[in-house]
Amino acid sequence: KHIILLPGDGIGREIIDSAKQVLTAIASEYNHRFTFEEHAIGGNAIDDYNTPLPDKTVDACSKADAILMGAVGGPKWDANPSHLRPEKGLLGIRKQLELFANLRPVKTISSLLYASPLKEEIVNQADMLIIRELTGGIYFGTPSERTPNGVVDTLRYTREEIERIVERGFEAARIRRKHLTSVDKANVLESSKLWREIVEDKSKEYPDVSVTHLLVDAAAMKLVTQPSFFDVIVTENLFGDILSDEASVLTGSLGMLPSASLRSDGLGLYEPVHGSAPDIAGKGIANPLAMILSAALMLEHSFGLVDEAKEIERAVNDCLLQGFHTADIHIPGGVQVGTKQMTEAVLENVT
Amino acid sequence: KHIILLPGDGIGREIIDSAKQVLTAIASEYNHRFTFEEHAIGGNAIDDYNTPLPDKTVDACSKADAILMGAVGGPKWDANPSHLRPEKGLLGIRKQLELFANLRPVKTISSLLYASPLKEEIVNQADMLIIRELTGGIYFGTPSERTPNGVVDTLRYTREEIERIVERGFEAARIRRKHLTSVDKANVLESSKLWREIVEDKSKEYPDVSVTHLLVDAAAMKLVTQPSFFDVIVTENLFGDILSDEASVLTGSLGMLPSASLRSDGLGLYEPVHGSAPDIAGKGIANPLAMILSAALMLEHSFGLVDEAKEIERAVNDCLLQGFHTADIHIPGGVQVGTKQMTEAVLENVT
Ligand SMILES: CC(C)[C@H](C(=O)O)[C@@H](O)C(=O)O
Ligand SMILES: CC(C)[C@H](C(=O)O)[C@@H](O)C(=O)O
Repeated sequence: KHIILLPGDGIGREIIDSAKQVLTAIASEYNHRFTFEEHAIGGNAIDDYNTPLPDKTVDACSKADAILMGAVGGPKWDANPSHLRPEKGLLGIRKQLELFANLRPVKTISSLLYASPLKEEIVNQADMLIIRELTGGIYFGTPSERTPNGVVDTLRYTREEIERIVERGFEAARIRRKHLTSVDKANVLESSKLWREIVEDKSKEYPDVSVTHLLVDAAAMKLVTQPSFFDVIVTENLFGDILSDEASVLTGSLGMLPSASLRSDGLGLYEPVHGSAPDIAGKGIANPLAMILSAALMLEHSFGLVDEAKEIERAVNDCLLQGFHTADIHIPGGVQVGTKQMTEAVLENVT
Repeated sequence: KHIILLPGDGIGREIIDSAKQVLTAIASEYNHRFTFEEHAIGGNAIDDYNTPLPDKTVDACSKADAILMGAVGGPKWDANPSHLRPEKGLLGIRKQLELFANLRPVKTISSLLYASPLKEEIVNQADMLIIRELTGGIYFGTPSERTPNGVVDTLRYTREEIERIVERGFEAARIRRKHLTSVDKANVLESSKLWREIVEDKSKEYPDVSVTHLLVDAAAMKLVTQPSFFDVIVTENLFGDILSDEASVLTGSLGMLPSASLRSDGLGLYEPVHGSAPDIAGKGIANPLAMILSAALMLEHSFGLVDEAKEIERAVNDCLLQGFHTADIHIPGGVQVGTKQMTEAVLENVT
């Protein structure tokens, strides 16, 4: 299996090295051959190639079996014109590789519950998967420009774009707790009305999955008041951006959350939910666990290596139970370590 | 002062009567003359006039000194075509009267903290005012329609629309804790880039107000992890819809939250944040406090009657301290009452 590594900016470099070490250990244990190839994206690509997404990177990614990304962005490039911003690299690769399905699992980790902003009885059963549409909607619609006396952005979806992501939602719900929550703003937006129609249509093909429609404002409330209500959530790009980030802080384990962005044939880009944390970059204190868990997600989704993925997840959990934590998580009574030691602790637990 | 009452649907009728009683008591205590006139909006207007917003209602409202609304909507009209949905009445009156500034205060009430989904130490200092743009953006932009192979919605703002709401934000911050958080998605949307530019420009006129720019996804996180960070939040229509609802559940006092929707000359529509609660309509158990506090907000903002507004707020607080609560709030060791008794308790405390 050929894996493209995109370290990106900030702590990206440090944590992607951790993931690579863990994958190498898994490869030798299970007798797989993983080859790695590194490419530039984001701010460092702007510095070196004057574009956040060099053609070489896109070419390499499109020939790969999977892509692991660290994170992009940083204050250094914040004042750049928009085509020279790190985020454009991320938006570009999603679009060019048609990575339309963004999977964001959020699950309570009991040893980190104390760090949740929510009361334990509210959050302790939370276990959801948010599926966000990633290549359509207002992020990509035209016109998106200044007008003579103002500005316009455009939210467009084709029927097919909605159908394929909604199907993903139903398929995911079918192999989980069989409850799909579709989030829209059907009382105001035309796009949401079509979205809701398509969900209703598709639901006939999935009689085993129960469907709840929630307006996006109501969903933003329910994530906080009753996160355990949710099994699979499916929603469009912008709503998914907001709700998945809201959901990511509920369990107190933001530093642990992986994500996958998938194409229909299974090619995927895997990255931690957290950002590039420029303030702690290069200090050797970044938490590599979300990145390592992103590698596990890759093994499962792109390579079908379920046992290997479980092995990594177990190893990470064991580290937490042993009390290892990085500066961002603080396990009471545990021992605080840096990126390197945390990676070694995971490697020790991968047997 | 001439006040239009729009009871609307569901529990709207019951709670608007409570507010009217409290206003009448205040009028006689302080020697004001309030006159009331009732009009139809929402589902009941559809039933009686075949439109969610009769011209008569708009006419009366535009001649009034202020408008008090209950709530609109209910399952009875959910399957209606979109021009015959209760929400259209609400969207229509906002737009036709140019009620562009939606004010949503969210403040911790200590006797209700136990009902918050957040840990007490996270939420106990929360005291914010969300200012949402209400008559522009993707709610009203055209085209908003089916296309040959999909659908389109349009987010439009004129420079003037952004300027006037941003000014509101700065003005509000100036008389509070002087911290304005402007929420946008400037790393993706053109409209947000213009928004951010305008905020930067205006900030020169308010050197006493400090400004934070937050991306909408980051704001959705920070509301949960650190609600006390916020003083005044200003944002566009859709982001404001999502974030103000998210914020409304943080303190455990959704049944207590009022809102105001204002025109530039001070005309305002006041309504509770909660909905029409069709499931409990007519049972006499609805919580009238958000509606009563909306009347207080009206006295303050539209009539400049600050003492009278404070009197009502104090009376409501006293009721809670005395242990009175409706079915939705449960004060431990308190006494559960219905809409009528709760209203009487408030009246008793208005001296
Ligand atoms: C960087 C930004 C464009 C991006 C998005 O909004 O999609 C990020 O917030 C994310 O969620 O991956
Ligand atoms: C009913 C609906 C159109 C409305 C909105 O989204 O503006 C409501 O959610 C609100 O926030 O007042």
